Formats: sequence, structure tokens, C-alpha cells
Amino acid sequence: MGDGSSLTRLRVRYGETDQMGTFYNARALEWFECGRTDYLRMIGQPYVAMETRGVYLPIIEARLWFRGRARYDDELEISTCACMSGRARVRFDMRITQSASGREVVTGYTEHAFTEAGGRALRPPQWFLEAMGRGESGRSENAIG
Amino acid sequence: MGDGSSLTRLRVRYGETDQMGTFYNARALEWFECGRTDYLRMIGQPYVAMETRGVYLPIIEARLWFRGRARYDDELEISTCACMSGRARVRFDMRITQSASGREVVTGYTEHAFTEAGGRALRPPQWFLEAMGRGESGRSENAIG
Amino acid sequence: MGDGSSLTRLRVRYGETDQMGTFYNARALEWFECGRTDYLRMIGQPYVAMETRGVYLPIIEARLWFRGRARYDDELEISTCACMSGRARVRFDMRITQSASGREVVTGYTEHAFTEAGGRALRPPQWFLEAMGRGESGRSENAIG
Amino acid sequence: MGDGSSLTRLRVRYGETDQMGTFYNARALEWFECGRTDYLRMIGQPYVAMETRGVYLPIIEARLWFRGRARYDDELEISTCACMSGRARVRFDMRITQSASGREVVTGYTEHAFTEAGGRALRPPQWFLEAMGRGESGRSENAIG
Repeated sequence: MGDGSSLTRLRVRYGETDQMGTFYNARALEWFECGRTDYLRMIGQPYVAMETRGVYLPIIEARLWFRGRARYDDELEISTCACMSGRARVRFDMRITQSASGREVVTGYTEHAFTEAGGRALRPPQWFLEAMGRGESGRSENAIG
Repeated sequence: MGDGSSLTRLRVRYGETDQMGTFYNARALEWFECGRTDYLRMIGQPYVAMETRGVYLPIIEARLWFRGRARYDDELEISTCACMSGRARVRFDMRITQSASGREVVTGYTEHAFTEAGGRALRPPQWFLEAMGRGESGRSENAIG
Repeated sequence: MGDGSSLTRLRVRYGETDQMGTFYNARALEWFECGRTDYLRMIGQPYVAMETRGVYLPIIEARLWFRGRARYDDELEISTCACMSGRARVRFDMRITQSASGREVVTGYTEHAFTEAGGRALRPPQWFLEAMGRGESGRSENAIG
Repeated sequence: MGDGSSLTRLRVRYGETDQMGTFYNARALEWFECGRTDYLRMIGQPYVAMETRGVYLPIIEARLWFRGRARYDDELEISTCACMSGRARVRFDMRITQSASGREVVTGYTEHAFTEAGGRALRPPQWFLEAMGRGESGRSENAIG
């Protein structure tokens, strides 16, 4: 991923493994969420503040490719960037790799609508588009681990 | 457990195992919650209805004894009963066993306060105490699987 | 879905909700796994027995569409069927609906490779293909809840 | 906690909240595990290396006191220390607080046996006792975040 991506580091928890000895697949969606959280913080619009302002980003679609193993206590890096998908949705692209080797573990994306608390669709707020635009031209040194 | 206990059946999910090959310990607290849900339904006060009425049962304390293994796809039974703990708390006792062999997997309890949505303490409602009293003298044929 | 699909029923656990008040998205992948487990049991090849025989089905890809809300204690139905995807992969299609209303909650699929315990690719075993073939022409009365 | 305790920092994930708006109780046991992992790394015996040497620490008992709220994206600190409990068990004490305010969120402990991979009880290895002894006299600057 390019310039405007955020970087998240985490270690695989024991409870995230399953009896196959690698991470359990559903945890990848939870790691994707960690990536989104750090991306939104990086562009100056932490998601906790967005919900406070009444803007929610419910997930509409997700796609995941499982590309490599990750074991208990492995350190992983999540690289996240975002772009608009049509006029009404935002799409986050995530790439999870092994910190030590750089090998891919999971890649994928999630798409989200903009809604108010009650679920009614919202037009994407101008301040969000502007923040994302700045994020896209930002640098990865802004990344938050 | 005696008469007024509810019975919950579930199968260990693959995602509930860890690399030791048995269930991951935190899942036991989630299974306890399944037991509480079925107990409250049995006594006629489903928790979803309680929250709608503005009565919440946040957890205050939990204790768990891990007594045996449970593997992927094993069928487990959760036996749950409840009593008041002092004047202001309700305590649920849970016992999880292997359906096939009856062997114990986890036992323990959780204690809960009564609060309104905002977290302010409530006196335990009379209708709850009455329902629980009837539950204690009920029979396990009322159990919901 | 048609004839050869299995049916799984479950209730949304409290711990499966998030602060948006609906289920947390990663749980859908866990529910998909419950669907696969019941499908494989239905066709006479429970996954626990497959791993014992040395045949593993690690996940390669997943896609999910989030179509509706599901709240704590809602009863959901998972309809699962399977087909080969190329010569080396099996694909499971899942459709999760509200039991009461039939409204869709999540749809999607997962694709899996065939490997031995160590991760080396296996040719799909003949007994698996045959069981799946029978499943495809089976009936939903074989479904396991 | 005193000198020989490790320090873990994490942020509450969105998927760790529930519809009450605070973290879901079972996640506390997962956070306890993060604390244990960092404690064992601090004393020079990472758990991943222990399992490689054939020494497992299955959980026998857990106790948790839920003392305060923690919301999505709150930064938490886990302070972990350990001592022997009788001759055959190790006990970890965990204290989770809000990083910003220092307010307690969850406190508790877990007790663990020493076993080999197959589950047979082991005498606590001398190298473990020595590492723990050094940990107890160590300093918190050794902490790993």
C-alpha cells in the first residue's frame, strides 16, 4: 500500500489460535477492525468521535484472502488505507503481514455505509471526505502502532 | 443442581478451541451467559425483556473452575440456577458437563447487580424476585435447550 | 437454497452483540463455521472425523454480505450447501436468516483447500466427493439443528 | 503491584464491546492472557518457548472482579505478577486499569497447573521457578508494552 496507509502492530493472542495451530479465521475480521480504527485516528477522525457526532459506519460487505499462517505470539502488521466506493460507501483495504518476515497472512477489504444511529442512510459528511483526502496524500510516518 | 435449574445444550465450535486442542478458557464465560439467558427465559423473565423494562444485570464478579476437557464438536450441557446474594445482587451458579459422559467441564458462578441503563443501582424488582422464587420451586422439565 | 442444504439454528449471544446493538461482524464467520459443521455431519462426514483421518480443510477465502440486523436472543437459521470450486477446493455457501421473519441477515461463502495436518495440499478424497454428491441430491429433512 | 510485575497496554476493540456499551465480560479473561504472555516474556520464559520445551500451563481456576467501565478505544493497562500457589501451581494476579485515569476496570487471578502436552501433571521445572524468582526481584522497567 502507498502513502496514506496506517500501520497497526499486534501480537496473536493464545485465544486467537484454534486447534489447527494457526489463528482462527474470524479473528481476521477483528484485526481488520483494529486497522480501520487506527486509520481513522491517523486521518484525524477517530471512530469514537464519529459515533459521538452521530455518524456510524456499519459494515456492508467483507472479503478476505487467507494467505499464510500466523501462530501464537507472532507479531503482525496491519496496513490499512481507504477510498470511496461509489458515492455512498467507504472501502477499507487491509493487508496483514508477519512483522519479522514480511510474509502475507491475510488481505482483504470491508465496505461500509454511512448512517445515523437509527440506521438511516446518511450522505458521507464533507469533513470525512476531506480528512480522507488528506489521509490519501499523507505519509506513513503518521502511523499509530 | 436441584429442581429450579435450566438446561442449555450446545456444541463446542471450532473457533472455541485453541492450540492446546481443548476449548479456550474465555469461552466458558460466554457459555455461562448462555446458561443465564436460558434460566431467565425459563422463569418467564427473558433478559431481552428485562433490558426493555430498563433493568440491567451488569456482572460484578465471576469465578470459574476448569475441571475437564471439551473438544471441538463435543456436546455440552449447562445447568444453571440462581439465588439472591445479599439484598442487592443475584448470583447464578453454572455447571457445564459433557452430555455423553456427564463428566464436568467447568463449574462456577457469576454475581450481578441490578442497575438502570445509565448504571445507577436499582433495588431488585419485586416481579424478578417472584419469578425467581417460582423458578426455584419449578421443575427441570421447564428447561429450554 | 435447494435440497442438499443443512439447517442450523442458533440464538444470538449477548457477547455476540456490540455497542451498535446488533451482532458484531466477525461473529458471522463463526456462524458460517457452525453451518459447515452441520453440513458435513449431514452428509455423513463430520469434520471431527475428517481431521482424525488426516484431512484438513483450511480456509482460503471468504466473502460476506451483511444484509440485515440481528439482535441479542434473536433466533437465526443458517442454511448451508457445498460444491467443488475447481478440482482442488470446496466451497460452502451460507445464508443466515431470522427464523421468525425469514429476513436475511448475512449471506456469503467460504472456500477451503484440502491438506494434511502439516499443511501439504491433498487431492480431494473420493469418499468426500461421493458424500458431497449424495448430499447434493439429499433432502433437507436430513438437516441437523 | 510491586516490582516484579509486567505491564501490557492495549486498546478496547469495537468487537470487545457489547450492547451495554462497555466491554463484554469474557474479554477480560482474554486480556488476562495477554498479561500472562507479557509477564512470561519479561522473566525470560516466553510461553511459546515453554510449550516448545513441552511444558504447558492449563488453567485450573479463575476469579474476576469487574470494577469499572471501559469503552471502545479506551487505552487500558494490565499489570501482571505471579507467585507459586502451593507446590504444583502458579498463580497470576492481574490488575487492569484505565491508562488515562488509573481507575480500576477488572482485577483477578488465574491459577495454572504444569503439564506435558498430553495433560499429565509435571513438577514445576527448576528453570521456571528461578526465572520467576528473578522476576519477583526484577524491576518494572523490564516491562514490555
